[in-house]
Amino acid sequence: MHDICPLEYRYGSSEMRRIFDRRSMVKRMVMVEAALMRGLEEAGLAPRGCWEEVMRCGESIAPEDIDGLEEKSGHEVWALTALLAERCGRCGGYVHLGATSNDIIDSAWSLAVRDALRLIRGKLRALLDTLSDLARRHVDLVMVGRTHGQHALPITLGFKLAVYAYEHARSLERLCSLERRVVRGKISGAVGTMAAWGDKALIVEETAMKTLGLAPHPISTQVAPRDGFAELLAALGILASQLDRLALEVRELSRPEIGELREKPPGPIGSSTMPHKANPVRSERVSSLARLARSLVVAALENIPLWHERDLTNSANERILLPHAFLILDEMLDSMHLVLRTMEVGREAMRRNLELMRGAILSEALMVRLVEKGVPRLKAYNIAGRIASQALSTGSSMLEAALADPEARRFLDMDELRRILEAENYLGSYRELVARALSYVGKAEEMCREEDT
Amino acid sequence: MHDICPLEYRYGSSEMRRIFDRRSMVKRMVMVEAALMRGLEEAGLAPRGCWEEVMRCGESIAPEDIDGLEEKSGHEVWALTALLAERCGRCGGYVHLGATSNDIIDSAWSLAVRDALRLIRGKLRALLDTLSDLARRHVDLVMVGRTHGQHALPITLGFKLAVYAYEHARSLERLCSLERRVVRGKISGAVGTMAAWGDKALIVEETAMKTLGLAPHPISTQVAPRDGFAELLAALGILASQLDRLALEVRELSRPEIGELREKPPGPIGSSTMPHKANPVRSERVSSLARLARSLVVAALENIPLWHERDLTNSANERILLPHAFLILDEMLDSMHLVLRTMEVGREAMRRNLELMRGAILSEALMVRLVEKGVPRLKAYNIAGRIASQALSTGSSMLEAALADPEARRFLDMDELRRILEAENYLGSYRELVARALSYVGKAEEMCREEDT
Amino acid sequence: MHDICPLEYRYGSSEMRRIFDRRSMVKRMVMVEAALMRGLEEAGLAPRGCWEEVMRCGESIAPEDIDGLEEKSGHEVWALTALLAERCGRCGGYVHLGATSNDIIDSAWSLAVRDALRLIRGKLRALLDTLSDLARRHVDLVMVGRTHGQHALPITLGFKLAVYAYEHARSLERLCSLERRVVRGKISGAVGTMAAWGDKALIVEETAMKTLGLAPHPISTQVAPRDGFAELLAALGILASQLDRLALEVRELSRPEIGELREKPPGPIGSSTMPHKANPVRSERVSSLARLARSLVVAALENIPLWHERDLTNSANERILLPHAFLILDEMLDSMHLVLRTMEVGREAMRRNLELMRGAILSEALMVRLVEKGVPRLKAYNIAGRIASQALSTGSSMLEAALADPEARRFLDMDELRRILEAENYLGSYRELVARALSYVGKAEEMCREEDT
Amino acid sequence: MHDICPLEYRYGSSEMRRIFDRRSMVKRMVMVEAALMRGLEEAGLAPRGCWEEVMRCGESIAPEDIDGLEEKSGHEVWALTALLAERCGRCGGYVHLGATSNDIIDSAWSLAVRDALRLIRGKLRALLDTLSDLARRHVDLVMVGRTHGQHALPITLGFKLAVYAYEHARSLERLCSLERRVVRGKISGAVGTMAAWGDKALIVEETAMKTLGLAPHPISTQVAPRDGFAELLAALGILASQLDRLALEVRELSRPEIGELREKPPGPIGSSTMPHKANPVRSERVSSLARLARSLVVAALENIPLWHERDLTNSANERILLPHAFLILDEMLDSMHLVLRTMEVGREAMRRNLELMRGAILSEALMVRLVEKGVPRLKAYNIAGRIASQALSTGSSMLEAALADPEARRFLDMDELRRILEAENYLGSYRELVARALSYVGKAEEMCREEDT
Repeated sequence: MHDICPLEYRYGSSEMRRIFDRRSMVKRMVMVEAALMRGLEEAGLAPRGCWEEVMRCGESIAPEDIDGLEEKSGHEVWALTALLAERCGRCGGYVHLGATSNDIIDSAWSLAVRDALRLIRGKLRALLDTLSDLARRHVDLVMVGRTHGQHALPITLGFKLAVYAYEHARSLERLCSLERRVVRGKISGAVGTMAAWGDKALIVEETAMKTLGLAPHPISTQVAPRDGFAELLAALGILASQLDRLALEVRELSRPEIGELREKPPGPIGSSTMPHKANPVRSERVSSLARLARSLVVAALENIPLWHERDLTNSANERILLPHAFLILDEMLDSMHLVLRTMEVGREAMRRNLELMRGAILSEALMVRLVEKGVPRLKAYNIAGRIASQALSTGSSMLEAALADPEARRFLDMDELRRILEAENYLGSYRELVARALSYVGKAEEMCREEDT
Repeated sequence: MHDICPLEYRYGSSEMRRIFDRRSMVKRMVMVEAALMRGLEEAGLAPRGCWEEVMRCGESIAPEDIDGLEEKSGHEVWALTALLAERCGRCGGYVHLGATSNDIIDSAWSLAVRDALRLIRGKLRALLDTLSDLARRHVDLVMVGRTHGQHALPITLGFKLAVYAYEHARSLERLCSLERRVVRGKISGAVGTMAAWGDKALIVEETAMKTLGLAPHPISTQVAPRDGFAELLAALGILASQLDRLALEVRELSRPEIGELREKPPGPIGSSTMPHKANPVRSERVSSLARLARSLVVAALENIPLWHERDLTNSANERILLPHAFLILDEMLDSMHLVLRTMEVGREAMRRNLELMRGAILSEALMVRLVEKGVPRLKAYNIAGRIASQALSTGSSMLEAALADPEARRFLDMDELRRILEAENYLGSYRELVARALSYVGKAEEMCREEDT
Repeated sequence: MHDICPLEYRYGSSEMRRIFDRRSMVKRMVMVEAALMRGLEEAGLAPRGCWEEVMRCGESIAPEDIDGLEEKSGHEVWALTALLAERCGRCGGYVHLGATSNDIIDSAWSLAVRDALRLIRGKLRALLDTLSDLARRHVDLVMVGRTHGQHALPITLGFKLAVYAYEHARSLERLCSLERRVVRGKISGAVGTMAAWGDKALIVEETAMKTLGLAPHPISTQVAPRDGFAELLAALGILASQLDRLALEVRELSRPEIGELREKPPGPIGSSTMPHKANPVRSERVSSLARLARSLVVAALENIPLWHERDLTNSANERILLPHAFLILDEMLDSMHLVLRTMEVGREAMRRNLELMRGAILSEALMVRLVEKGVPRLKAYNIAGRIASQALSTGSSMLEAALADPEARRFLDMDELRRILEAENYLGSYRELVARALSYVGKAEEMCREEDT
Repeated sequence: MHDICPLEYRYGSSEMRRIFDRRSMVKRMVMVEAALMRGLEEAGLAPRGCWEEVMRCGESIAPEDIDGLEEKSGHEVWALTALLAERCGRCGGYVHLGATSNDIIDSAWSLAVRDALRLIRGKLRALLDTLSDLARRHVDLVMVGRTHGQHALPITLGFKLAVYAYEHARSLERLCSLERRVVRGKISGAVGTMAAWGDKALIVEETAMKTLGLAPHPISTQVAPRDGFAELLAALGILASQLDRLALEVRELSRPEIGELREKPPGPIGSSTMPHKANPVRSERVSSLARLARSLVVAALENIPLWHERDLTNSANERILLPHAFLILDEMLDSMHLVLRTMEVGREAMRRNLELMRGAILSEALMVRLVEKGVPRLKAYNIAGRIASQALSTGSSMLEAALADPEARRFLDMDELRRILEAENYLGSYRELVARALSYVGKAEEMCREEDT
């Protein structure tokens, strides 16, 4: 049983866990040793047929086997190579020849990160599709727009969600464009010079890379440059913060005083002591995990300044950083997607809130119309402001207050005022903007899809 | 088998893992439910004898049982209380009465943190003892002091280590003084008003607290204030950074060009491809994990601004933050302590390096002596600087260069110069300062020990 | 004119700016050089009367003078000492004798931090007083308590504010108790051994420390240990996050749908285009600056692992970190205090919101009463939950739904139900808890006050 | 005089300061108001000729003028528009029509960021050119490669520097590719719907954008999405950490025991009390400022989750974050570039250190050759390891120890051993790799240059 880290059993999907469990990591290291062997074969440094042999004999190696040998030797990759040497017959004598541990580890990380990125991007695309669908479905559903938590101007729910779609599509772009810097193989030996393979070195590297389906770093020290993982963690931290923003939207709009959205609870029990509670716990989980995703960026940045041809100070924390960051995002995407797919929309509450300020939120509309009538903007601002204040302080509607304002009446008659102070008439170019947003999302998905296959 | 998080199997001690494994966390939650029951009894709100009964019938509850029920209900603590209700007979009807989930969770966290803090402080004290012993043993072992990585003035190894002892003792102080803010119980109901227990509420709380051996927060919302965990994580992040500094000392002084310290490797294999390597891998692990410890502070700070009487956004990340931070520090303390206890001291290298600049590091000594002879300080600075430059550029010793400098010779004869330019004669008050440091360490340990029992 | 950094002209008080402006920093460095001179006198290493002379002749030194010389020499403190040497006549020859730059800089930082801490604590105390006053004034003003953003149980505004008072008092404690670790002088020479002053060193240090009113570090390298500033920045980051939480409370309760608090706007203009807006901009500023205060902790932690007897990598960033952190907190305290002193309380909105769920928020009260009548807790939970669901879904009141529930009626008659479902009757021990909180605050202030003078 | 923030007077170039000083920021806001006016004209919502008029009459507006009005109104952009209204005659009546403050602020930020990015990228390109030149010049200069701070295998200085060039080129890529997400204009009104401009809205936006030379966001709330600045700050934090790594290289190799590089000091004074010191203070400054650059990322990430159509909590900290991040990087690039251009290379020290381990660093070369002779790799590893241990423990050379080892001698004769154990013969494909690196750098510069103009 897993005991301590909730990512083992509580947060994250089993697909993502499978990518990062120790068994998979060992399999990937074996695969890299095999790819290296193929390179050695191609370069004439190892007998033909050995790379398939390493794949075969490496299959039986379990994490526990490595642990046993590591305890004696003090070195994980050495333990793996000793096991391969022992189990791979005559080919065993060529295993790991000329390679350094991090040739294996960094290339294996790249394979894992490639898989994990695909999973994350797939889930992000699904989220984008849901956001886009919802934006289309609710494109005309009018609600109040809020700035500073205050009522600003009317928008539509579709418009709001299209903004989120656009924002998240930017993350998709980042998670695609970083791949060529982050997912690269590294087979270049102890200090990166490939010295052990003499004048056949580039053949070794090229063959190994092809076998793994990775492009190599053009140059490196003992390790791949760590700005790659920092860029990756930053991109995940940004995506996490965007999901946090979306979760915050749901949490805020689920307040009983607002009631415009309602997260479907994960089960019948909201509170252990307050039977009436229906808490937006999934969205809250998203906001909670976002904090961790943000904080991990700091450690990834600190890993960049390694000494000379590398020191080991990236190693221990990356064993935690990388799986944790991906599992956290994986959980966040799944949770948020579920929230989006199941949340209820409170149409009546939207209407009620829209009318809460009795038209005062349309003061800008009034001001603009006055300018069109020839009033200088600042004067129009003051008139509209005066009317709004009047309405808010007396409890009358904006329309009533406007009708009672002689200066406003000089420019606008009742019909005009009525039309101006109707939320539906002041939604601007929302349809074009939603279309622009969804088109951007589509292009980002298109661009990214190609790169992915 | 544990799969993903290296804190499950690779880093941290089994004592610390035992504190934070799920089984222990469940046991602590049962203990808090029992303590609450005792409070209910004392207040006349539950039958006598129930609290022992809850302790007894709670023993059989395993994390898996909770998982099963949680899946159905969507609520972890509710699942626990349902199990207790079911298994505790007539007392089951009073379980959790008037409490909120976080009464249980926060009080359980406090119990866990209390244990974990004791373990960490115990290990820190052991480290301080080793540092103090080493400082005493090497109090007179002269070596060069370095600032900016450059040779500055002579010190002794004992002096160097006494500084580390003092610095780490400051962490011990912090880890003691924060306990009264962090380790407090919380039994006050859904919004902190204790409403469910009517006019008996303070009896319920007081009895529960006494049973758990905790002081209560004088007031709280649904949860204990989160500045406590932020203070805790910051104190751990500071200790981690101090251990990082000590590890850095070992790593730098282990460079082959320097050779003044040498970390004993964990096993015979230093590198998987370079048989001659002896790498300071334990110290490097300490530096690596320090980065994670620092980064977690950020999330803990972000957990402070919860909404109103609380929201849930602290919850998911704290399940990771708290065990991870303690296990990381636990590993760091163990690793660093092992390094200190087994490292080799390179006395010859110390002597060789001390003489590397052939006396130029004593230019301050020369300057000061010139001032004592009546030369204004700035002029003396220039004379000493000129002689040092002369020595460094020609490769002669500082003494030779000084002897050849007519202005210096006006004030100082050869015997004086020889005496001045001897490292052993320019160690200052190092013995008094080491004594002051160790006395401070002793007082910190004394002060802290009392608080601990 | 100040151009770039808004802390020069926009955020922060002039008192705090005065503490950290360059002129004050230079004055403090002169003061430390003078204190050192007094130590030298006392030790017989400089002529009597020189320390007053240094105070006097140092008065004329302006930042610009130092800049000029620093450009030529590449060294700031050297430039200062050269100016003093030049301007202080015969005493000039003894200026800075045996000291290292950081003796001056770190001691000067301590003097600045001492002043800045006093200012911050003074403002925090004032805030605590206001919070306490408000808690007392509104102790009985009933409002709904919120968890997860949802309605939980009734509290009072005084209770809510007393929690904030308690939380902030914990910061006051921290800002007091760290002083003995952070505000210490450092006069111990280039590597901390005090070598230059021979057997008179401890006299030099003691005299200088007394003159400055500082306790010395018992031992140090070239610099004071940097865990001090990390602890300081963490404590400020925690306080910032608490203020953020309070600001968030104001911002949320100022939403028009809620309306329980209302921040007084700083001027007549809320929005440049929406005349009706009244935005809680001061509270938003507090939340904004809190993010910066949190992020600076990271750099302060990274400054701890300096090389050997120190390297310079703390220096450049501390010149920014320290003034920025204090000015940010200074602005936050001032802004938040002004908000508290001027905000409006929406009593009617509180009453309206309290009744929004028509009594369902009292489901816990019903459950507890049923348990008292002999119903097992879990069964009572289900009954109360069923009634609340019934009420919420049909739009009837909790009382109506309870009256219509045969099972509830078996245990409770109408009068009892009416009493149970009255918010005023379910406020628990709020008065005792408020008293406990304010007493804690008072003690923290008392404890801290003594230390301050 | 600038008083408090060292970025006003100490760190950063005057070009970068000019971009971010208040005067420039005001000019940019005026420019955006003018561009908006042009859009209004084009849409028929303002009279022709007004946009040039706004440019003209806006020229006289100084930051002080705004401060005065802001104090009264409580709103900065409102103050600006009031000044324009007042000073721009009949056009004044149309200023800011339909826009929200953040249309102006965010578009102005984009203009500033565009300029600042160009400056940074220009300096980064210059650094890349210097690194490439140095890599070419020293392509064959053999030195020891170091991993874990220990001697690993020989490399060349050119190879080492080419790695840095490659790493920094990746930052150049990032700083180019983010531009299309970060540098976008925003003219879409109070909640992003462009409502004020009716069916002419897209004309207003398009014209304004063309005038400013910016692409618009396809959709937005009241503000541009904040993931942009987070990506920017992260990219700057990564570059800062790479510069930190390069500075660390210089600092470490400048140690007197190593002596392979030597930073030219900024002036004659290295230490205020140790005349012999030559400290790598510029590189240390780079490492110091890197910590700040890293920490600012945290605040930028926290700015992403704004409420609904935005809240103000990004505003105050961005006024600090953006100029500070750019000025810090600007200083770091200048300092590092100066270090690279003026540092001395210690060829003799490189040779001395290369031979320090008397050939043991070539144990891998021996192992590989044994495998080529048919020895299984693990056995070859053990033979080479045994010989290296023998050499290191007895103080003999690797060659002597190899010659004395009967097993090695079975496979290799003296000539072969001599050849194998020569550093020059084990440099691998360094020339091809350097060429690959510099070609990558060239392509990155090429790709980025086009985008820049």
